Amino acid sequence: MISAGPTARRRAALRALLPAVDGGAGVDALLVSDLVNIRYLTGFTGSNAALLVHADGDAASRFCTDGRYRTQAAAQVPDLETVIDRASALALAAQVFAPGVRRLGFESDAVTVDAHDALAAAAEGVALHRAPGLVQRLRAVKDAGEVEALRRACAVGDAALADLLAAGGLRAGRTEREVAHDLEERMRAHGADGPAFATILAAGAHSAVPHHRPTDTELRRGDLVKLDFGALVEGYHSDMTRTVVLGPAAGWQRELHALVAQAQAAGRAALAPGAETRAVDAAARGVVERAGRGEEFVHGLGHGVGLQIHEAPALGKTATDVLAAGMVVTVEPGVYEAGRGGVRIEDTLVVHDDGPELLTHTARELLEV
Amino acid sequence: MISAGPTARRRAALRALLPAVDGGAGVDALLVSDLVNIRYLTGFTGSNAALLVHADGDAASRFCTDGRYRTQAAAQVPDLETVIDRASALALAAQVFAPGVRRLGFESDAVTVDAHDALAAAAEGVALHRAPGLVQRLRAVKDAGEVEALRRACAVGDAALADLLAAGGLRAGRTEREVAHDLEERMRAHGADGPAFATILAAGAHSAVPHHRPTDTELRRGDLVKLDFGALVEGYHSDMTRTVVLGPAAGWQRELHALVAQAQAAGRAALAPGAETRAVDAAARGVVERAGRGEEFVHGLGHGVGLQIHEAPALGKTATDVLAAGMVVTVEPGVYEAGRGGVRIEDTLVVHDDGPELLTHTARELLEV
Repeated sequence: MISAGPTARRRAALRALLPAVDGGAGVDALLVSDLVNIRYLTGFTGSNAALLVHADGDAASRFCTDGRYRTQAAAQVPDLETVIDRASALALAAQVFAPGVRRLGFESDAVTVDAHDALAAAAEGVALHRAPGLVQRLRAVKDAGEVEALRRACAVGDAALADLLAAGGLRAGRTEREVAHDLEERMRAHGADGPAFATILAAGAHSAVPHHRPTDTELRRGDLVKLDFGALVEGYHSDMTRTVVLGPAAGWQRELHALVAQAQAAGRAALAPGAETRAVDAAARGVVERAGRGEEFVHGLGHGVGLQIHEAPALGKTATDVLAAGMVVTVEPGVYEAGRGGVRIEDTLVVHDDGPELLTHTARELLEV
Repeated sequence: MISAGPTARRRAALRALLPAVDGGAGVDALLVSDLVNIRYLTGFTGSNAALLVHADGDAASRFCTDGRYRTQAAAQVPDLETVIDRASALALAAQVFAPGVRRLGFESDAVTVDAHDALAAAAEGVALHRAPGLVQRLRAVKDAGEVEALRRACAVGDAALADLLAAGGLRAGRTEREVAHDLEERMRAHGADGPAFATILAAGAHSAVPHHRPTDTELRRGDLVKLDFGALVEGYHSDMTRTVVLGPAAGWQRELHALVAQAQAAGRAALAPGAETRAVDAAARGVVERAGRGEEFVHGLGHGVGLQIHEAPALGKTATDVLAAGMVVTVEPGVYEAGRGGVRIEDTLVVHDDGPELLTHTARELLEV
């Protein structure tokens, strides 16, 4: 007997969640329409697909995509019966009669109101039930292969930043845009398929803008320079932020950096299976608040990362998630002094029973370049 | 009196469509939640926003985003009252009581079932009405500023390809991935903010795969090489495909290219205000079908292009759109001989009363490099 691959194991894990849908009434099958969830459950990377996960098993389940992806689907999803149809989700909904589905779950957090209308028409006589977030919940806990992919993506980010620094790429006179592009090219040279997201490169007062987009502003001696970037490797995203000073740091820069570093260490130390993510956020935020600067920490502490750059769990003041072993999250407090400068320090870590494991390894001490 | 800017004019045009919503019953306001539509109507480029377009005018309308974008919103959307709230769409829905909205339209093609549930709860007592595609319909017809942005984006694509060819960048021994990246870098050098989409670079038998992603396969002498690429400039996307041969073309390559070129010319000639897009598709497809190769033309003829790479109108066998002056569309027939090679030729054009205007200018004759 062939041992099940990771996607078959994920579909089996999803099946185990189906009886709890609709307040415990359960569903006979789940129609998955979110493309990232479909990639997770099948390995398919095309831009149009739907997946019917039947409670009875893979033999009763169906994958659907359109004619452009016939060859790709055969290669990536060899273990599921594939239907070729342009209107993927509707085609599968119409098919549910065959396997005898009476109660069909759908991703109410991904399906639009119009798409739901069309589904209801295509699956006439079948009852549609809201089933949001099931696959996202599974995706939050990474399997060994996923952690390996994230480890490689994080290593690419570390290597690219080391190269940039070694080459003197962070220097006065270069623009934010040039440095951001340079860093992205170095990630590519180390094997990234591309940046994990649009690189944030923010110099001087721009460093106080949390999500600043690079401009033609030149870096100047004395600037705080915030670099928030990541690599995309095999569909997985890395995420890291470092804030450095061009030249010797001023006292206020050194103090700001030390405060954020202390908050970040507190946040990392709070990562443990069973911890409420709002408590992890509070561990870091408390450090900033006790310094009287809570108002300048304007965002959540972090987020899960994987096939998407932002995914479950959320780490924030109002978050309701609970950590589990195998979750991969960022810890990224920031303190932003409007008009002057800000510091953010971010790492990506795996939650383990015996303490968190850093996947990003670049030194966290204040760097004066 | 200050003359209205383009975004105010677009909001006024949207207002004119509100009485027709819900079969002519009309709505008092439309809640816009699609971020591209919001960019079109306000100029805002952030990642979280909602817009309430009130039938009574801009004074009664509201824009909403979260705290990260306070400064950006003030700069990009100075002409609308702005609400800062993390749950943008819900905050605006809850506000509709104030301006006395009883009937609220929402984008049922963008709002998920769960988001609709939350909206209904936040706007208790207000009737929600499906209003899909209104802004997309406006966006299909470009104003002068948009055509200029598309013209610049297309010029960047032309210039980058000319540079690649002049530099001998298309040669045997380079990989698909290298050439694709080279082309993207050249677009950036000409002022693109990035590629308009992941460049398709397909050599040899790969050229027969319509949406092939570049691999480490090396280009070889005698290969058909398909390049489908575009530049992103000020939020607008260009789109062009050329298929060349490395070295002297074989007879079958020359014939295939001539057939597609003839189909493409027929498609371009059929672009006129009032033309049904399915008829434009048929004009090009007929050429391929009469050559007995209709089965190998496996996709639609083209699509609108603007703030998104694919937008209204659709040009295809089952499309129901009608062309109007000012629409910007691609014309891109392809014939794909599985396992051997394919040819696609694509231009971006503006529909005018006195005939279509090409925005992409690279020669369409078969190039042997």
